[in-house]
Amino acid sequence: MSTAPVFTRVAVVGAGLIGGSIARRLVGLGAYVVVVDPDPGTREAAAAAGLAVAETVPADRDLVVLAAPLDVIVATLPGVAAAAPDAVLVDVGSVKGTVRDACRDHGLESRWVGAHPMAGTELSGFDHADPGLLVDVSWAVTRGPGPVADVVRWVVDTFAATAVVLDADAHDRAVALVSHAPHVLANALLEVVERAADPAAAHLAAGSFRDGTRVAGRDPLRTRNMLADNAAALGPVVDDLVATLQDYRRDLDDRAALADRLAGVTAGADAVRRPEPRWQPCPDLDAALAGDGPVLVREGVSGLESAR
Amino acid sequence: MSTAPVFTRVAVVGAGLIGGSIARRLVGLGAYVVVVDPDPGTREAAAAAGLAVAETVPADRDLVVLAAPLDVIVATLPGVAAAAPDAVLVDVGSVKGTVRDACRDHGLESRWVGAHPMAGTELSGFDHADPGLLVDVSWAVTRGPGPVADVVRWVVDTFAATAVVLDADAHDRAVALVSHAPHVLANALLEVVERAADPAAAHLAAGSFRDGTRVAGRDPLRTRNMLADNAAALGPVVDDLVATLQDYRRDLDDRAALADRLAGVTAGADAVRRPEPRWQPCPDLDAALAGDGPVLVREGVSGLESAR
Repeated sequence: MSTAPVFTRVAVVGAGLIGGSIARRLVGLGAYVVVVDPDPGTREAAAAAGLAVAETVPADRDLVVLAAPLDVIVATLPGVAAAAPDAVLVDVGSVKGTVRDACRDHGLESRWVGAHPMAGTELSGFDHADPGLLVDVSWAVTRGPGPVADVVRWVVDTFAATAVVLDADAHDRAVALVSHAPHVLANALLEVVERAADPAAAHLAAGSFRDGTRVAGRDPLRTRNMLADNAAALGPVVDDLVATLQDYRRDLDDRAALADRLAGVTAGADAVRRPEPRWQPCPDLDAALAGDGPVLVREGVSGLESAR
Repeated sequence: MSTAPVFTRVAVVGAGLIGGSIARRLVGLGAYVVVVDPDPGTREAAAAAGLAVAETVPADRDLVVLAAPLDVIVATLPGVAAAAPDAVLVDVGSVKGTVRDACRDHGLESRWVGAHPMAGTELSGFDHADPGLLVDVSWAVTRGPGPVADVVRWVVDTFAATAVVLDADAHDRAVALVSHAPHVLANALLEVVERAADPAAAHLAAGSFRDGTRVAGRDPLRTRNMLADNAAALGPVVDDLVATLQDYRRDLDDRAALADRLAGVTAGADAVRRPEPRWQPCPDLDAALAGDGPVLVREGVSGLESAR
C-alpha cells in the first residue's frame, strides 16, 4: 500500500448502490467523505448509516466521485466542477465515451478520469450499498490527459482492485461485450419465457434458467440507462448475437454443423474465461501506463505490479 | 415416505453424470443396483466406487433406468426391454417425444415412463457423479399408458423430488424454453465474445458474463445432443429470441420504448421465477394425475401432496 492516501477529502455525488458502496468503503478506511444526493430520503438513509451528507459539493474536496446516472452526471458536470475547483473528477458509470465528450466540451479533460468497478448486484439503491461490494474486483480506469496514475493508485489502494487501464472507447466496446450484452440476453430470455405463458416452464426451470436470467427483470430504468447509454458500442454486438442465433437456428437441423460450432466455442473458451496476465514489477507507473492497449495494475507482495 | 420401495431391483444403463448419480443415490439407500455401460473404463470407475457392474441388463430387474445418450437409448431399446422382460423402463434424458415414439414403434408404451431430473452441472461423466446431485429438485415425469403413478412415487421417495407430471410434448416445449434456450444463448454469447478478440473483454468480465456463459463451452457433444434432439420444440423458441433481440436492437435508440420493454419484463418476472403452487393432500395419486395440464406431486409432512 502507498504510505499516504492519494486523496483525502472526497465527495461522492449520488448515493445509490455504487456511490453508497464507495462512500461506505472510504469511511471505513478513515477518509473524510461527504455524500451529496438531491434526494432527501437517500440523504437520511446515508446519514443514518453514519455518513456525512450535504446538498452541494463542498469547495475543499480533492476528489469528487460522480456516481449519479449518466444523464445527471453530464447535466451537473459544470456545476460540480465549479463548486470544487481543485478536485479531480472521477465518474464511476458504466459508459465512458459520453462523459469524456462532456468533459471536453466543458474544458475539464485535464481534471477527469473515468473509473468503472466491474461488480455490482441485481439490486439497486443506497439500502443495498455495501462497503465490500467493490473490493478485490477489477476496476476499469480510462487513459487521457487527466491524472490517470493517481486514480489508478487510488482504486488499487482503496479497493484492493486490479486496475484495467484503457481508452474510453475501448472500455465501452469491451463492456458492451461482457456486461451489456449479457443483460440484453437475460432480459430477452425472460421476456420470451414470460410471453410463452407455459404452465410447466416455471416448475421445470433450474440452474441454466436461473443463471441466464439473474440480472433480468430488475430495476428497469437502471438497465435501460446502461444499455441505451452505450447504444453505439452495443448495437453491433446485438447484431452479431442475432446473426449467431440465426446460425444456431439453422444448425439445429444439421447435427454435424452444430457439433462443430459448439466444439469451436469450447476450444476458445479458456482464453476468454481465464486470462493469465504476465505480471511484472512496476517501479514507474507513468511509464507502465504509456502506449496503447489495456494495462493491468495491482498491488503485489512488494509493491505495484503491471501486466499487458 | 412409502413404507416399501416401489422398485427393488434396478439396472441403470449408461453411467455418465446422470446415470452415475442415480446409481450412487440408489446404492446409498440400500437398493440392489447394477450399472450397465458399454465402456470398460466407465465400468471400472463405477466398480471402484462400489457399484455392481455388468455388460448386459440382468433379467430379474423390475426397473431399468435408461441414462444413455438419446440415440443410444432409441437404438438399444428393444434389446434392453427383451433382456429384462418384467422391468418398467424409465429414461432420464432431456427430450421425451422421441423416446415415446420409439416405445410406440416397439410396442413398449405400457412399460415406459419418461423422467427428467431438472438439475445437473456443466460437468459430465461418471467421475462427476454425485449421489446428492438429483436430490430435492424437480423431476419431470411424463403421462401415458405406462405405470406413471409408480414412477412418480419412485422419484418422490428416492430423490425427495417434486414430480412435475405432464405430457411428453408439453415437457419438450417447456424445457426448450427454460433449459435448452439458455444453453443456446450462453454459447452464442461466448462465441460472440471469443470472435471479438477484444484484449480488454476478459479482464472486465464479471458476474453477468460469468453467469450468462456458465453452461457454455462445455462438453460440445452432450450440448449438441440436447439441442438437436429437441430441435422441433427449440426452433420456434430460438425464432422468438431472434425477433426479441431485433426488438432490443431497434429500441436501443428509443429510450422510452426500451424502458417500457424492460418494465414489462420486470412486471412479469415473479410469475415465472416464483410460482406458488396451492398444495393439497393427495390421498389418491391416480385421481390427482388424471386430466390435462401439469400436476405437481411432493411428499408433505403427512403424506403425498399435489398441486395443479
